[in-house]
Amino acid sequence: MKPAILIQTDFSQTWSGVAQMKGVMKIVDPSLEIIDLCHDIKQFDPWEASLSLEAAEPYWPKGTIFVSVIDPGVGTSRRACAAKLKDGNIVFTPDNGSLTHLLHSVGIEEVRRIDEETNRYHDNEQVSVFHGRDLFGYCAARLAAGLITFEEVGPSYPVSEIVECEEFFIEPVCEKGFAEGFIMTGTRHFGGITLNIRNDQFHACGFEHGNTVRVVIIREGREMYYADMAYVPSFGFVEKGEPLIYEGSSGHICIDINQGNFMEENEIGIGREWIVRIVKGQA
Amino acid sequence: MKPAILIQTDFSQTWSGVAQMKGVMKIVDPSLEIIDLCHDIKQFDPWEASLSLEAAEPYWPKGTIFVSVIDPGVGTSRRACAAKLKDGNIVFTPDNGSLTHLLHSVGIEEVRRIDEETNRYHDNEQVSVFHGRDLFGYCAARLAAGLITFEEVGPSYPVSEIVECEEFFIEPVCEKGFAEGFIMTGTRHFGGITLNIRNDQFHACGFEHGNTVRVVIIREGREMYYADMAYVPSFGFVEKGEPLIYEGSSGHICIDINQGNFMEENEIGIGREWIVRIVKGQA
Amino acid sequence: MKPAILIQTDFSQTWSGVAQMKGVMKIVDPSLEIIDLCHDIKQFDPWEASLSLEAAEPYWPKGTIFVSVIDPGVGTSRRACAAKLKDGNIVFTPDNGSLTHLLHSVGIEEVRRIDEETNRYHDNEQVSVFHGRDLFGYCAARLAAGLITFEEVGPSYPVSEIVECEEFFIEPVCEKGFAEGFIMTGTRHFGGITLNIRNDQFHACGFEHGNTVRVVIIREGREMYYADMAYVPSFGFVEKGEPLIYEGSSGHICIDINQGNFMEENEIGIGREWIVRIVKGQA
Repeated sequence: MKPAILIQTDFSQTWSGVAQMKGVMKIVDPSLEIIDLCHDIKQFDPWEASLSLEAAEPYWPKGTIFVSVIDPGVGTSRRACAAKLKDGNIVFTPDNGSLTHLLHSVGIEEVRRIDEETNRYHDNEQVSVFHGRDLFGYCAARLAAGLITFEEVGPSYPVSEIVECEEFFIEPVCEKGFAEGFIMTGTRHFGGITLNIRNDQFHACGFEHGNTVRVVIIREGREMYYADMAYVPSFGFVEKGEPLIYEGSSGHICIDINQGNFMEENEIGIGREWIVRIVKGQA
Repeated sequence: MKPAILIQTDFSQTWSGVAQMKGVMKIVDPSLEIIDLCHDIKQFDPWEASLSLEAAEPYWPKGTIFVSVIDPGVGTSRRACAAKLKDGNIVFTPDNGSLTHLLHSVGIEEVRRIDEETNRYHDNEQVSVFHGRDLFGYCAARLAAGLITFEEVGPSYPVSEIVECEEFFIEPVCEKGFAEGFIMTGTRHFGGITLNIRNDQFHACGFEHGNTVRVVIIREGREMYYADMAYVPSFGFVEKGEPLIYEGSSGHICIDINQGNFMEENEIGIGREWIVRIVKGQA
Repeated sequence: MKPAILIQTDFSQTWSGVAQMKGVMKIVDPSLEIIDLCHDIKQFDPWEASLSLEAAEPYWPKGTIFVSVIDPGVGTSRRACAAKLKDGNIVFTPDNGSLTHLLHSVGIEEVRRIDEETNRYHDNEQVSVFHGRDLFGYCAARLAAGLITFEEVGPSYPVSEIVECEEFFIEPVCEKGFAEGFIMTGTRHFGGITLNIRNDQFHACGFEHGNTVRVVIIREGREMYYADMAYVPSFGFVEKGEPLIYEGSSGHICIDINQGNFMEENEIGIGREWIVRIVKGQA
C-alpha cells in the first residue's frame, strides 16, 4: 500500500488552494490518499507549523509523508526540502524553522533540497508563487507514488544546517514546587494555552494530581492574570467555568477553563513575552 | 468492503486534533476510509450533536460507523459507548444525550460500554483527556477493520439507561391553522432556524404551500419578531430579502430569508426559551 | 479507476450538509472517492463559483467530475445541468453563471439538463430544497459509478443557452505602460485581490519584474487607495508589510501585502465598482 500524504498549510479552506495541491498530486497518481492535517496554522508562522507537526506526527503510521506549507519566504532563496525522520516518516517543507520540534523529538536522519529541475510541476512555468502545489506537493506525490526514491528528491545537505526557531531553546525554570515557562501556543477554538513545560518536567517538580496551584501570568513585567486552580487529569474534575491545569495530549502542560475559553475570558495571548509562573499551594 | 467511518466533533479544524484521530485509525488499519461529518458542532453541547447525527445518518449506507465526540464530561464517569441502531449503523459516542434523536427516530437495538482495557490506544497512557482519539476513534477503527466484533466492544447495558436530552420531550402545540414550538437549532452560516415542529405535524395543521402565515417569536414573554411570510417549497419562491417558511430537509419546519441571514438580521437565538407561534393568514 | 468527484458549495462545513451529499454518493457506490474543493464560496454568488471552478479545474486529472452547488435559485425553474468540458472533465451545477469562466477558457462541448425523473434521489420526496444532495450529487455519483452514461444525464440543450455572468465581458484597458481593470475577486483569508487583467495582457503592456508601478484604486469616482509598489515574481521579493503586484497562480494579476492583509488594511472590497489603475513608474 502506498503511504498516505498529510497536508498542513496556512491557506485556510476558504479558496481552492488546497484542492489545487490535491489535484496535482492526483495527476501524478490518482490512487494516492491525501488527508488534511490542518489548514489554519497561524499565517506565516513556522513556529506554529513546527508545533503542529510535532503534535500530529506520532499518531500516524510509519512511512507517512507530511507536506507542510507555511512559507513566508516563498520565491526567495530559503531551501525547499524533504526530511527523513528517524522513525521513517518524511516531511516536505520549506526549511524555515518548521522542522524544529521534530528535529529534537523524533530526530532527522537525512535532509535533501528538492531539485526544481526534476521535481517541479511545469504546467505553468511563468508563475512562481505556488510552491505548495508545484514543488512540495508535486514532489511528495512522486515519492509516495514510487516514481522517485528519497535520494532522487534532490541533493542532501547537512542536518546541522536545518533552520531552527530560537524560541525552542528557551528552557523553563523547574524547581521543587515551582515551574516557570512561556505560552508556547494555544488553541484559538477552545481557548486553552500550552506552556513550554513538558509533562515530565512538571512531575519532576513534585506537582501531583489534586494539588491546588497558584498561576500567575506576567507580560513585560506586568501581572496579567492571577488565580489558584486545581491540577487534575482532565476537564471533568473541575466545575463548569473553573480553570484547571493538566497534562496536554501534546506532552506539554496546559491551562484552560472547563467549558470556557481561557484566552478570551482573560485576554491572554501567545508568545515568549507571556510568562507563566506556577507555585504549589501551601494550604 | 469495510464500512466507512464518519467523524463529528466540536474540535474545529483549526488544530490537528481531528488529524490525530484519523492517524490512530490508520495505525489500526491503513485501508480504512474516514470522512468528516462536521467538526463545528456547538461546543460542549450534546443536544446539537444529537440533532446533527439525526440529520446526517439517514443519508449514509447501512453499516456506516459514526464517531461523535462532543464530550463535556471527558475524564469523568460518563459512559463511553457504542450503540447499534436498528438500521445496522453504529454510533460511538459519550453517552451524554448525543443519542437522543436517533434513539427515537431510527431506534437503538443494543448499546455497549467501551472496554478501556482492550479497546483503548495505549501509546501515551499518562494523558487522559483525548478520548476522541484514544478511545472512541481507536475502538471504532478496530470494529471497522474487523479486528473485533460489536460484542467485543465491551459489556452491554440496557437501552433504557441511555441518557436523553430533556428538550426532546417538549411537544409543539399543533391545532387547525396554528402551530407553536421552540427554536431547536439553526445554521449559523445561512442564518435559518429549525423548529421542533415536524413537517408532517405542520401539514396536519392544515398549512399548505402558497399560504401566508403570521410568525411571532417570543422570548421570556417579550415579542422579539413579528411578520407575515409565505409558506413555500423553497427559497426561490420568494423575492431576495424576503422571509419564508418551508419544510427543512431535516424533517422539521424552518424559517429563513431568501439570500439573507434570518438570525443575524433579526437578532434571534437558539434554544427552548425562543418560542415561535405560526398562525394561518385570514385574508 | 473511477473518476474522483470534487465538490464546491457555499454551505460551509459548520453543519452536516456536505456530509449528507457525500453519504448519498456513497449509497450510489461506496467505492467513489469524493474530495472537497471549497465550501466557503461567497454565498449565493455564481460569479465566485465560476472563478473558483476556473482556478481549480486545470489542476485535476482529465475525467474528473465537479459538483458545484451555489444555487440561489434552488427550487425555481433555473436549469440543473451537467456540462462536458472540451478537456473531458464534467461539471454538475445549476446553470446560473457558474460555468461562465470555464466556457471561455477550457470550452464546453455539450450541456445536458438533469432528468429529475431518473436521476434524482427519491428517499424524501416531500422536500425540494436540497438539490445539492438529491439531484446534483446523486446524478454525479451515478455517472462516476458508471451506472449511467453522460447522455443519460438528461436531454441536451444548446451550449449557446448557457447562462453567463455579465461581469465577464468587461474588458480591462491595456496600453503601453498602463492597465486598468476591476477587482474580480480576493482571498478573504490572505487579503489579496485579483484583477480582471490577465498575466499575458499585463506583460503585453510592457510591465517587467523589478518595475515600480503606481497603483490607484477608485470607487464611484473617489480615490480609495494610492501607492507605489514593486512588480515582482513573489512575496519574498519585498519587505514584510510592503505591498506588491504579481502574477497570480490563477492567471490574473494580483495585489497583496507581504505577510499582511491588503483588503483589510486598506478597506478595499470586491466587485466591478472597484477600479484599479496601474501606471508604470517614470523614475
